[in-house]
Amino acid sequence: MKGARNSVLVWGLGAMGLRIAQALLDREYEIVAAISHQVGADLGTVLGAPPNGVTIVERPEEVDADAETCVIATHSLLSQLAPQIEWALGRGMHVVSCGEEMVVPAASSATAAAQIDAAAKRAGRAVTGTGVNPGFSMDVLPICLTAACITVERINVRRVNDLSPFGTSVLRSFGVGLDTAEHARARELGEIVGHVGFRESAALISEATGLRWDSFEERAEPIVATSRRQHGDTVVDAGRVAGIRQQAFARRDGSTVLEFDHPQQLQPAADGVETGDFIEILGDPPIRARIEPEIDGGGATAALVANVIPKLLRASPGLHTAATLPLPSLSFGRR
Amino acid sequence: MKGARNSVLVWGLGAMGLRIAQALLDREYEIVAAISHQVGADLGTVLGAPPNGVTIVERPEEVDADAETCVIATHSLLSQLAPQIEWALGRGMHVVSCGEEMVVPAASSATAAAQIDAAAKRAGRAVTGTGVNPGFSMDVLPICLTAACITVERINVRRVNDLSPFGTSVLRSFGVGLDTAEHARARELGEIVGHVGFRESAALISEATGLRWDSFEERAEPIVATSRRQHGDTVVDAGRVAGIRQQAFARRDGSTVLEFDHPQQLQPAADGVETGDFIEILGDPPIRARIEPEIDGGGATAALVANVIPKLLRASPGLHTAATLPLPSLSFGRR
Repeated sequence: MKGARNSVLVWGLGAMGLRIAQALLDREYEIVAAISHQVGADLGTVLGAPPNGVTIVERPEEVDADAETCVIATHSLLSQLAPQIEWALGRGMHVVSCGEEMVVPAASSATAAAQIDAAAKRAGRAVTGTGVNPGFSMDVLPICLTAACITVERINVRRVNDLSPFGTSVLRSFGVGLDTAEHARARELGEIVGHVGFRESAALISEATGLRWDSFEERAEPIVATSRRQHGDTVVDAGRVAGIRQQAFARRDGSTVLEFDHPQQLQPAADGVETGDFIEILGDPPIRARIEPEIDGGGATAALVANVIPKLLRASPGLHTAATLPLPSLSFGRR
Repeated sequence: MKGARNSVLVWGLGAMGLRIAQALLDREYEIVAAISHQVGADLGTVLGAPPNGVTIVERPEEVDADAETCVIATHSLLSQLAPQIEWALGRGMHVVSCGEEMVVPAASSATAAAQIDAAAKRAGRAVTGTGVNPGFSMDVLPICLTAACITVERINVRRVNDLSPFGTSVLRSFGVGLDTAEHARARELGEIVGHVGFRESAALISEATGLRWDSFEERAEPIVATSRRQHGDTVVDAGRVAGIRQQAFARRDGSTVLEFDHPQQLQPAADGVETGDFIEILGDPPIRARIEPEIDGGGATAALVANVIPKLLRASPGLHTAATLPLPSLSFGRR
């Protein structure tokens, strides 16, 4: 089965899936089916537009239209994404997901990555993952900059962002509003997730540039507010947790060759913190890049998913990363 | 004929060719032949290293070794590069050139571009052009950033750089040191070249992103020094020309959609001008990136040429631009 040119199945209409769907409709794509929790609703209505005749279904078995591409915005983890991806490939669709671990599936499971690659090759379709981070600000952009370097000794990437654009569930997954003792307990219980993607970004940088390391350390610490802030139902008083600073260090022979620094909090401006994406490449020539304020995560992820589809449709069958696809770019559709 | 794995012929050992040759030797490449004006000299000696047994020859007919890749650093213009590229393809080599017009050959001649593409396909080899500008700072980097945008209304790119790294011949081609009347006369006589590449950068952005325009205007004006500066034999007194500011504007229906601003002068710090690469994307989301100081032009061009070779060797036969090759990156050689 092969869907019509530019037809898309969207799987997952949470906050991100809705933005992706809108970006697709702004381009040359037709969304012919949707799987999400808004079961029975009309997709157009859910997007705040006139009804478009596509009724949202709950399960993939209920999808009765053929699509050329399946966009999956359901989960972060490969273990949850893999069965959905393999189902879509089995139905003859190309697949792109914004799930963090799909940016470099081999970083979390070489076996699952090989299975997805094999399923894609059997189906003669291409599959990839993308998003603002991992997938762009802490990996693709630094990689692109290293092309101008004869040698690179070390890469430092810092992304300082505001959690305000995210919903309550994301704020909860960062433990925003807890006191420091509660936050420590929640972290011990595994209830605090924070950013998922350092290993994927590091793997993408290594795949693209050939930089290698022998140890990889991740750290996380709460960011404690020194001033009050409020966002919707979430209140953070001074002294309570406003977010998490996560860091990672890749080292070779004891020397750091790659450093990620990713402090994310609610309304950092309240404590005088300015947001941005900062990339420092220590090499020949050295390069220091600043993007201020930070690249908007929600909009960028929706854009990256929509923009990669024409490149995916032209790619060889199998599992791709950003390192094997062409230079990323704005793209209004296949030309 | 096919040269051994990682063997390279370097054609052109001016300031840039020498830097490229050094970058290649720092990687996994073996330079098996060299064509340049240092006829009869040993390549190693010319690079300031021990002799390596490669004698520099004057003309391609004198090359008696087979190489896998030919690196051409001889000219800026396609009319001069095309015969050299077609000779190299005819000898079974992949080809990369840092000549400005080779970044997007179709921007200066669709016919010449089609001929190179056809010659490459006949030879079963890949050919491309790259360099810091055009080829990276005013096109590839902005293109990469647009991947994070759902829509783009306008792109402004400004590269402010120092001419100090360049030799006397480049300074002369900018008319550095002339008084303003002399400079105006030299421009009228076509003796002032300045930057070549706005049309190539614009074409690359259009090819990659689908942005279109109906008019393209270029401007150039001398930058007049307000303080004295000296560099080698070149002296610029206050009131004389220190460089050129070139601009280009691509407009659609009268509105600017792409603006390039490229002031280049000798020692801009003398007049308090700070150098950098500045990219502003007006879109959703908007993105403002700053790289300060500017990406070093000489080192970056050598790096971009050396780093693209592994991607070229894996590419399909024919003429490629940065928009059809994979994400650019540091690369120490083919893996």
